[in-house]
Amino acid sequence: MLPKGNFPAKVFLNGEIVTSENATISVFDRGFLFGDGIYEVMVQLENGIFYKKAHLDRLQENLVKIGIEYQVSDLEKEIKPLLIASGLVDQPCLIYMQVTRGVAPRKHSYPKGIPATVMMYALPFQMPYINQKNMHAILQTDFRWHRCDIKSISLLGNIMTNEAAMLVGTDEAALVRDGIITEGSHTNIFFVKNGSVITHPANEHILDGITRKILVKLCQELNIPLVERGISVEEIPSMEEAFFTGTSTQIASIAQLGNHTYHAPDNFGPITQKLQEALAALKEIDTSEVTL
Amino acid sequence: MLPKGNFPAKVFLNGEIVTSENATISVFDRGFLFGDGIYEVMVQLENGIFYKKAHLDRLQENLVKIGIEYQVSDLEKEIKPLLIASGLVDQPCLIYMQVTRGVAPRKHSYPKGIPATVMMYALPFQMPYINQKNMHAILQTDFRWHRCDIKSISLLGNIMTNEAAMLVGTDEAALVRDGIITEGSHTNIFFVKNGSVITHPANEHILDGITRKILVKLCQELNIPLVERGISVEEIPSMEEAFFTGTSTQIASIAQLGNHTYHAPDNFGPITQKLQEALAALKEIDTSEVTL
Repeated sequence: MLPKGNFPAKVFLNGEIVTSENATISVFDRGFLFGDGIYEVMVQLENGIFYKKAHLDRLQENLVKIGIEYQVSDLEKEIKPLLIASGLVDQPCLIYMQVTRGVAPRKHSYPKGIPATVMMYALPFQMPYINQKNMHAILQTDFRWHRCDIKSISLLGNIMTNEAAMLVGTDEAALVRDGIITEGSHTNIFFVKNGSVITHPANEHILDGITRKILVKLCQELNIPLVERGISVEEIPSMEEAFFTGTSTQIASIAQLGNHTYHAPDNFGPITQKLQEALAALKEIDTSEVTL
Repeated sequence: MLPKGNFPAKVFLNGEIVTSENATISVFDRGFLFGDGIYEVMVQLENGIFYKKAHLDRLQENLVKIGIEYQVSDLEKEIKPLLIASGLVDQPCLIYMQVTRGVAPRKHSYPKGIPATVMMYALPFQMPYINQKNMHAILQTDFRWHRCDIKSISLLGNIMTNEAAMLVGTDEAALVRDGIITEGSHTNIFFVKNGSVITHPANEHILDGITRKILVKLCQELNIPLVERGISVEEIPSMEEAFFTGTSTQIASIAQLGNHTYHAPDNFGPITQKLQEALAALKEIDTSEVTL
């Protein structure tokens, strides 16, 4: 039995649509035994699923990275039936997808010839036009693995870090590896200085977020110079603005990072605001088939 | 339905003993969504469960490390009923245990007040008196996280590394972090030089195996100097012997590590053999209540 909580009405699981209560998997699923799977989160807006193709492409790329044989196009076909069953057709909602290597006796090496476990659900979710949050974030040592480019469900490092931020009443943790800020526990991080936007390169130490990719394009279109380099902890006070990005976070201005205050409540920096507005404008059009 | 494979007869799951077929959990279990759990593996011998207390103590310590509230003493009581139901009382078998944070709507931070998910099963497993394998191992970059001291189910890094070893027909991968060999994909690694045994310190870059702890004690008793330091890749050829250790691996002599050959088939080094015999002798006594 499920505890009380905001569970979805329906879950797509291995070809069937069932209630959350009935959405069960074997304890021998490698997702449960080894964290051996990939996930993806998308948001449906009035104009369709925001950058749906970009999300599905990334899911496929990540499955290839860890050698899970599954065609994401098969899952794409199930989105509509799930939304119908969930009463969320054309409704603002969040769509969560997870694919694991499947069920097999516990052994580290990859089992062959078993079907992947595929799960997806949708939950009502209304994003604000612009995220008006004043984020407060702590700095935490980035002790995660060195393949953060893989959107894996082996997330213990991320959740430990997120919990540390929650414990002290903040909104997020910015991760620091070898003195350099990489990203948040489930967001990317950007800084602004002298009119330039600065963010960590999309290498093995960060997850290249869809919103991060969108911002790279938006900066080009808005003629805002974008520099891909990691900002050190020492540089925090010399930056003028800072913000987190993510699919449900969109762009969230950082008011306080560690001991440094970037701005008073609601006094977002000019570049942060400009990008927030440009991102919000993209929601007015259908981006579901746009590649990034 | 389960695919064909060596699944256990029975599974202990949240207070009940069920068939493997019926051992199912919610897709909202944080073990499945986040790899948010701890596991343990023990082996039952004729004289009882080998270092049972040491394993259960470690399970409890690891649960505390990630803030999962569960008393392992409650699980210990269930071992006997499980073995009875599994037809494995006093039979050589492997006992696998896993505790996750439980079921909750997907959110990174830790949910409060939900019961942990507890799973355990036993499988027939006969260990040889001495592991006679001639291990061949590749060297792999250690890209795992920096809390390898936590025996977590977020194991994607480990299984990717293990799979890389299997793909080239070897038995294990020795992991290299910043030029230093840390451990295997699911084993610890030891070297021998000038009569001394050398192994990586038990810090955040390795899992401090129960067999590793036993060997530290055995070396003391046998007056074999034990040095805890990481061996660099460059030092491999200058070492005289090498072996992997683990609960089911016991002590496995490394014949070949990367490009370097330590010994011809079955020609195990003298210290490796001495330790293999000393470990085997421990199986003749009841170690189930010994602390390490």
